[in-house]
Amino acid sequence: MRILDKNYHSIFLADDEKSICIFDQKLFPWQVKIIKLETYEQAAMAISDMTVRGAPLLAMVGAYGLALAMAQNSSDEMLNHAYNVLVKTRPTAINLKWALDKVYASIKDLNPNERKETAYKSASELCKEDIEINRQIGLNGLEIIKKISAEKSGKTVNILTHCNAGWLATVDYGTATSPIYQAYDMGIDIHVWVDETRPRNQGGFLTAFELQNHGVPHHVIVDNTGGHLMQKNMVDFCIVGADRVTKNGDVCNKIGTYLKALAAKAHNIPFYVALPTPTIDLTLSSGDLIPIEERDDREVTHIWGRDAKGEMQEVQLTLSQGFNPGFDVTPAQYISGYITEKGIFENINHISL
Amino acid sequence: MRILDKNYHSIFLADDEKSICIFDQKLFPWQVKIIKLETYEQAAMAISDMTVRGAPLLAMVGAYGLALAMAQNSSDEMLNHAYNVLVKTRPTAINLKWALDKVYASIKDLNPNERKETAYKSASELCKEDIEINRQIGLNGLEIIKKISAEKSGKTVNILTHCNAGWLATVDYGTATSPIYQAYDMGIDIHVWVDETRPRNQGGFLTAFELQNHGVPHHVIVDNTGGHLMQKNMVDFCIVGADRVTKNGDVCNKIGTYLKALAAKAHNIPFYVALPTPTIDLTLSSGDLIPIEERDDREVTHIWGRDAKGEMQEVQLTLSQGFNPGFDVTPAQYISGYITEKGIFENINHISL
Repeated sequence: MRILDKNYHSIFLADDEKSICIFDQKLFPWQVKIIKLETYEQAAMAISDMTVRGAPLLAMVGAYGLALAMAQNSSDEMLNHAYNVLVKTRPTAINLKWALDKVYASIKDLNPNERKETAYKSASELCKEDIEINRQIGLNGLEIIKKISAEKSGKTVNILTHCNAGWLATVDYGTATSPIYQAYDMGIDIHVWVDETRPRNQGGFLTAFELQNHGVPHHVIVDNTGGHLMQKNMVDFCIVGADRVTKNGDVCNKIGTYLKALAAKAHNIPFYVALPTPTIDLTLSSGDLIPIEERDDREVTHIWGRDAKGEMQEVQLTLSQGFNPGFDVTPAQYISGYITEKGIFENINHISL
Repeated sequence: MRILDKNYHSIFLADDEKSICIFDQKLFPWQVKIIKLETYEQAAMAISDMTVRGAPLLAMVGAYGLALAMAQNSSDEMLNHAYNVLVKTRPTAINLKWALDKVYASIKDLNPNERKETAYKSASELCKEDIEINRQIGLNGLEIIKKISAEKSGKTVNILTHCNAGWLATVDYGTATSPIYQAYDMGIDIHVWVDETRPRNQGGFLTAFELQNHGVPHHVIVDNTGGHLMQKNMVDFCIVGADRVTKNGDVCNKIGTYLKALAAKAHNIPFYVALPTPTIDLTLSSGDLIPIEERDDREVTHIWGRDAKGEMQEVQLTLSQGFNPGFDVTPAQYISGYITEKGIFENINHISL
């Protein structure tokens, strides 16, 4: 997708065909800075200090991190050591471990001098796979937008999204944003309402930045506004990502998703979840079993922004204590369908996994 | 109610029994500063520059402003001039005009040398009336909290509120906060979830400040969190104020109220609106006829807070445009009841106006 009129992936090989380039995502939307990773230690640091975020993307940084390690020293000791360092950068990131295991498995039985090339190839294939999954999600979701556009005789399709399930969290396209980019690129008249998504404001910081750079018409709204817009027929379609989907189709996603799903149901507005099928967790029968992470209340009591001098600044918003559950669960009954790389499914059990 | 362990009204006579004291509400919660108004010009300025806010309070500042004018010069010319200056400070504030008309009517036919004393008396009576209305709202609403407390065998009653319908917007008690203060003062175990209430954050800035100073246990949450808390049985009762209530019982209030009402309905949690009966607008048959004010999008794209140096600072939150409707309408079907000074009514038409 585009940043400043140039097409990028969120992770890519440098011209030297060895170093790995990423964006310093802590600086979005205020600054676009590409960082070159030359060692696995730098890759590990980029993951742990949140220079990169988004489960699919950080998995790819991990995968390429192992390739960088092999370029540094392809011994068994290095392979095991780098794997251990990288896998511990974010212990709860399931995609990261999955990607590291893939690259590790592809090279562990090789002669050390063959490891480097194969590791780069494995990491590159994982990236291509991620792109292809998201592209397919986009093509499948596009059909819904096309249908709404036709029903509205080509009048603007208004789409509401929450948080950031965008290309910056993946290698390209994103999940919830993928149908939006596909629709925009084929000339469908769309407009996106971007929930700012307190706390952490990933909507205002990242989704809005993505859409702005790609040229997609949009407005940022506070998280309180969606219900009113739906009541006033100003939303045709809601689409969000998912952190985890349970066996019965309940969706765990950024806090506030549930309120929008309730409003969409009340106004008969389609509410879709875009997800790669590996996000489905068959080990949990329903969403109430998902432990909800309670995060630092400073995310509620304070906020980061850009001050008048152009500098990043944290300001305090209350003298009281905050309470900060990071996610909520939207029960399956509120979800119109699941947009996956394998197609759109009204019932999660109809997806062959 | 209390600030820093002392009881206050939001407006009161100074020790000289002539000047009027108010708080500089632009500085809450960071600083408590009492301002003395000695002339009607100062009163007009305090209203127009938002040193005071909240429809009931600014009406009282207007009323006392006319009394200050009469202390300066009690001629007919001054009376009419001061009335005109004060009424224009906030043209849309219906309470302000109502209060000015009351004081004006009480003194216009008097001998000029009798006007000053009567004007102070009229303003003081309006304040007492406001306090009494809010106290009654509190006593009526208290019964609901008592009942829930009894049903929970005295376990903590968790109350969710949105925006600020507190004592700082009135002379004392507030509307939505009045039952909360009454319950706390009689020793009922309560805890309040305070929606931060973007944009403008009146929840985090004002409601939280009020509760903290009065000692009421509470946490500030982002506006996204209420649905999750209701789903997890962490909310027993919702109470909000109202900017306007139409003949059929639809409630216009700060943007985001509707989303909380939808969630409360989905979880069978009582959702009450606290209001003085004059807030009911019989001229409008339903809420969809209320024009929704679209406010400056800078309230969405920027935010005020206190920086590390202790100074008020505005920071930017997105590079995109915002969209900022200030209010939404919650249809009557989502409202369990209306808590007024005349009692609690499930149906707005049962209130004798």
